[in-house]
Amino acid sequence: MLQGMVKAHPQLISLLPKTQVVVRTQAKEKGKVAVISGGGSGHEPAHAGFVGKGLLDAAIAGSVFAAPSFNDVLAALKHCGNPGGVLFVVKNYTGDRMLFDMATEEASSMGIPTRQIVVADDVAIAEVSKRRGVAGTIFVHKIAGAAAEMGKSLDEVHALAERASISIRSMGIALTPCTIPGNPKPNFDLAEDEIEFGIGIHGEAGIRREKIRPVRHLVEKILSHIFSDLPLEACDEVVVLVNGMGATPIMELYIAFQNVVEMLASKKITVYRSFVGEFMTSLDMAGFSITLFKVDEELKTLLDYPCHAPAWIQPFS
Amino acid sequence: MLQGMVKAHPQLISLLPKTQVVVRTQAKEKGKVAVISGGGSGHEPAHAGFVGKGLLDAAIAGSVFAAPSFNDVLAALKHCGNPGGVLFVVKNYTGDRMLFDMATEEASSMGIPTRQIVVADDVAIAEVSKRRGVAGTIFVHKIAGAAAEMGKSLDEVHALAERASISIRSMGIALTPCTIPGNPKPNFDLAEDEIEFGIGIHGEAGIRREKIRPVRHLVEKILSHIFSDLPLEACDEVVVLVNGMGATPIMELYIAFQNVVEMLASKKITVYRSFVGEFMTSLDMAGFSITLFKVDEELKTLLDYPCHAPAWIQPFS
Repeated sequence: MLQGMVKAHPQLISLLPKTQVVVRTQAKEKGKVAVISGGGSGHEPAHAGFVGKGLLDAAIAGSVFAAPSFNDVLAALKHCGNPGGVLFVVKNYTGDRMLFDMATEEASSMGIPTRQIVVADDVAIAEVSKRRGVAGTIFVHKIAGAAAEMGKSLDEVHALAERASISIRSMGIALTPCTIPGNPKPNFDLAEDEIEFGIGIHGEAGIRREKIRPVRHLVEKILSHIFSDLPLEACDEVVVLVNGMGATPIMELYIAFQNVVEMLASKKITVYRSFVGEFMTSLDMAGFSITLFKVDEELKTLLDYPCHAPAWIQPFS
Repeated sequence: MLQGMVKAHPQLISLLPKTQVVVRTQAKEKGKVAVISGGGSGHEPAHAGFVGKGLLDAAIAGSVFAAPSFNDVLAALKHCGNPGGVLFVVKNYTGDRMLFDMATEEASSMGIPTRQIVVADDVAIAEVSKRRGVAGTIFVHKIAGAAAEMGKSLDEVHALAERASISIRSMGIALTPCTIPGNPKPNFDLAEDEIEFGIGIHGEAGIRREKIRPVRHLVEKILSHIFSDLPLEACDEVVVLVNGMGATPIMELYIAFQNVVEMLASKKITVYRSFVGEFMTSLDMAGFSITLFKVDEELKTLLDYPCHAPAWIQPFS
């Protein structure tokens, strides 16, 4: 899969030999902060699809739904590490966190300044420290990547990524589970007429099961979870992401999005930018997640900053 | 769905009031040839996703898998038609062809010069006149859109679109049928361990059914169909499209693509550009199609010409 990705976008991304590390094809400017992310496979286009100018410097892929190898993180560090420093964008899972903690120690012994940002945007889980990093992670990549490309320092890039991270909330639903390659059965069973609320991106069951209902109802439920966690007032500006989980027709994503926009309008919340499509998937799961990202002027500038990666092209306007 | 699409990309596309016609938000230059396409819904991001600068001027959407209404074609003609003329890009289906033939007559009575290009890229069907227009249609949109944006005349735009059209071949397979909204059952049944070869984009059954086999085998079969129809020699250059049918994980599309690239390399055919993702879908069908587009220097320039549509951003390099 990684070989296919780099061959499809050879001008943008390359595979470091004998690793599962995807890096930018074009050499980066010396001294620029490197932004590195990674995690299990099965979430395509994340994470390799977000490697490119103005976005990530490297993405490290584990096996399906498994943390990357420590050797691969070291290879990425050696390739990208420089006196400007490295920001690791880490989704809040035990395996990923252990891995990047070890890498942070190692980087320190290599003399590379390193900071971490831990993304935990999934409001399906009430306890904040246990929240998973899901689709909203792509906005942390974008903000950190833009800040680094602008030439900001490691501390500045970290602070901006942190400001993005605390302003992002996501929640997802599924109509079907996903099936991990090699497993004979999906991780959970769901009847034809049932919906799973609050699913993660690794095929895990959600927090609640309900009878299937029209999409308007599903969108309302998800947004009410998000609103209770992310205070939003009239005239606040948000970026909206409706993310397909892998097997959801694009038609259905746009219908869900249309309902999100109507509900935000009824609260007089302004939509600054919208993203509808597949950004952080879960293999062949049918379903979608909604992410709201509350933005201020500086975050808007960073979001709109030009970038060129396989899964995100932000043209110079 | 269309309301969601235009609200997600308000800078790029708008809906003509009381129609299912999506047009560019920015006014086009006077005198430029207008490129108009359309067809049934259920193929998202086609066709509205390809409306934008350097691509289509308008996309007319019918109901799911149904030709658009004549009134909507007239609305598109009135909005886009001008002395520069109009090129209709038509997929080879009876309903669509009748519709655009009627529209061509009407345009003539309105004094708008009009040409048609009929796309029939699906090699699953042996008889050329009966071939369907499938995923390769997006390249005809791109070539015609770029030629029109460059300021070429209607005859020139038509000739270039024709040259693209005769150089494109596609074929698809499916692991599942699709289900049309409101229908209780899919259009055909397929066992867990079966593959349908030569499917169309409207849920119709294919030309042959086989036991499931590794992707390498499927890619080989599809390419052998294409090679027997599109003469390709060593050093020829092609553009590759691996198109997801709606429910296929992106991971699987890149694995299929990797196999396509290896087989082309073994024949010393050069890959000029690659596209992997969802471009012309069939609702919730799981499967993919492969398109090869043989290109020369002029077609390469047109393919790389800048464009900005929801589903295709070609940045100024």
